[in-house]
Amino acid sequence: MLIVQKYGGSSLATTDRMKFVAEKVVETKRAGHQVVVVVSAMGKTTDNLITLAKEVHPAPPEREMDMLLSTGELVSVALLCMAIENIGEPAEGMTGYFAGIQTDSFHTKARIQKIEPSRIIEELNKGNIVVIAGFQGISPENSITTLGRGGSDLTAIAIAAAIKADMCEIYTDVEGVFTADPHIVPEARLIPEISYDEMLEMASAGAKVMQSRAVEFAKRYNIPFAVKATFGKGGGTMVKEIALKEGAAVSSVSLDEKQVKITIFRVPDRPGIASQIFTALGKENINVDVIVQNVSKESFTDISFTVNISDADKTLKIVKAIAKEIGAQDIICDTDIAKVSIIGIGMMNHPGVAGRMFDALARENINIEMISTSEIKISCVIKKSDGVKALKALHKEFIQ
Amino acid sequence: MLIVQKYGGSSLATTDRMKFVAEKVVETKRAGHQVVVVVSAMGKTTDNLITLAKEVHPAPPEREMDMLLSTGELVSVALLCMAIENIGEPAEGMTGYFAGIQTDSFHTKARIQKIEPSRIIEELNKGNIVVIAGFQGISPENSITTLGRGGSDLTAIAIAAAIKADMCEIYTDVEGVFTADPHIVPEARLIPEISYDEMLEMASAGAKVMQSRAVEFAKRYNIPFAVKATFGKGGGTMVKEIALKEGAAVSSVSLDEKQVKITIFRVPDRPGIASQIFTALGKENINVDVIVQNVSKESFTDISFTVNISDADKTLKIVKAIAKEIGAQDIICDTDIAKVSIIGIGMMNHPGVAGRMFDALARENINIEMISTSEIKISCVIKKSDGVKALKALHKEFIQ
Repeated sequence: MLIVQKYGGSSLATTDRMKFVAEKVVETKRAGHQVVVVVSAMGKTTDNLITLAKEVHPAPPEREMDMLLSTGELVSVALLCMAIENIGEPAEGMTGYFAGIQTDSFHTKARIQKIEPSRIIEELNKGNIVVIAGFQGISPENSITTLGRGGSDLTAIAIAAAIKADMCEIYTDVEGVFTADPHIVPEARLIPEISYDEMLEMASAGAKVMQSRAVEFAKRYNIPFAVKATFGKGGGTMVKEIALKEGAAVSSVSLDEKQVKITIFRVPDRPGIASQIFTALGKENINVDVIVQNVSKESFTDISFTVNISDADKTLKIVKAIAKEIGAQDIICDTDIAKVSIIGIGMMNHPGVAGRMFDALARENINIEMISTSEIKISCVIKKSDGVKALKALHKEFIQ
Repeated sequence: MLIVQKYGGSSLATTDRMKFVAEKVVETKRAGHQVVVVVSAMGKTTDNLITLAKEVHPAPPEREMDMLLSTGELVSVALLCMAIENIGEPAEGMTGYFAGIQTDSFHTKARIQKIEPSRIIEELNKGNIVVIAGFQGISPENSITTLGRGGSDLTAIAIAAAIKADMCEIYTDVEGVFTADPHIVPEARLIPEISYDEMLEMASAGAKVMQSRAVEFAKRYNIPFAVKATFGKGGGTMVKEIALKEGAAVSSVSLDEKQVKITIFRVPDRPGIASQIFTALGKENINVDVIVQNVSKESFTDISFTVNISDADKTLKIVKAIAKEIGAQDIICDTDIAKVSIIGIGMMNHPGVAGRMFDALARENINIEMISTSEIKISCVIKKSDGVKALKALHKEFIQ
């Protein structure tokens, strides 16, 4: 088989862990497979580099930031190659550039445009284990780009697609995907199989297992992948296309505490205004999550939406400019929020799930500020202080 | 003017120093010059990376080592660009690869084959300060190579040659070139001007100012350069072509404690044997320094030579194989040695300098184990414990 394995930063945080990962990779090769390994930066390397950058520039330019951050993965590539060669297998390390990963020019959040995997395949055919720097690529202007946090997962899945791998394994510090975050809900259980869509909704609902762009990519190209623990023996969670099945309506619940709510008051209620705001945000690659528009009063309306806290400053700047232009009244940014979600492809077959969710929250005296629904997810924005309580209540209601 | 400035690791060891260097670079630009900056890795980065490598592999493979070490300079490039942009000047950072630095395939000790500087010139013409990763290039096989310790000096001088710079400034943590190491000989004085040849002999004599390959390159292409202190105001030392002049015979004295002496006993004394040994070492890019061959006895001879301590293991391995092949008797490696040298282009006009040197050492009761002379240098290999005493005695004899 042709297998892509991805190891995250915590799996590579020390040279001892690096050696353990090398053993695991070599074991896979010696079991008769061809292996491509995608690696993240060691432990807290990326955070440390960001700290250095902020010491020399209060708002580090993004192109230079990408050059800086891309070095973290290269260190992992070089060290893992050495560790593999030390056990006696040949390894070939590659930067994102040499692995043929072409991206657009959105520095710090680039999107993969194309992978030209000929060099990867060539090295595999020579009998080498190929080790590739995750999280990075090259722009049309020949600048180093990075894919944003969690981008190494995306690298692994995109490479699996490009080389038509038989299997893609995402190794991490958790045993797989759980019905809820086990740190918050001790009763949470491992989910052996989950659909791309549920996984996607979980990612956008704040479950920290994987970045949604990676899962989207896997879904689009139908690349089944496993989420497994590096330092564990369990089978993990298989993420793949799953036909709608009978049974439980809700497969997992999750909590996202990293959102902020931005409200624009007294927006003139005429066609094209909402589009103007959200197109501008889209152009800057800002993911808007829950959007609520109030019923119009006297030709004015209030628009609220949530974005990730890391995009808050950028979003406010854009929104303020537009608000001025369109004559909106006021903008507030509320950081004291959390989002709880229930997720499950079974939901489509079970009417009344939303009602049960609102009821479960009401019983805990939790006020719902915003609601957003999709076919397989319902999210409620609540006060941050109610987050954990809400998550536990929903796990009890739907899973246990 | 078109100016190339090189800043070493200690000049960039902290973000505060980085900001200081950025100010200096911007000052140069704002004085009306075009500026290319070549940077080393921050402080002890390279040593730390080597430590990590040795933790995963007792003898890290050199190709992977190069990939690993090359990241150190990239961090400096990205951070210095940010610091420059923070003061309001545009900067463009480049890896060795993108700067067009093509090398051979001798990993960890690659030689620059060619510089294709079109991208550097393009960015200068756009009004950018160009910041380039020193110490690295790309091999014909498209692997990242490094130029060996001190390779950033070579990068700076080679780039100055390729872009026809008007001035090349090597910024470091010393005020310039001294008549002897001021840490050992407090009476040592700054030399305002020195010839390439003297500088070269000083480098090979163990003066720690600059790597000889960088000076050789400067001499070959006649690139005058200045050695100056980053955190100082002095004019430093100008290194350039200097016509032979009257005056002092000896311009500097130096001490090298990083050599080992290898002796091969009972080598069959027939033509081609010495060549066999030293060709093999040359092929592995090992610089042999002093070579002494004893007078032949009964068709056998003893050959002694010195190499840098970092090449000792590799050298012994090669020499042992050849010794076996040619039937030599025994090999010993003596690490308890030091080399003192006197250097000066004036020496050619002053007969008797060698005699004065041997006499000065004899007066201090220092035994000479090996002697090597060139037109402008005389070196003596002595016991390591006599090194400092010898250096002081020679400085007193020839300089003070």
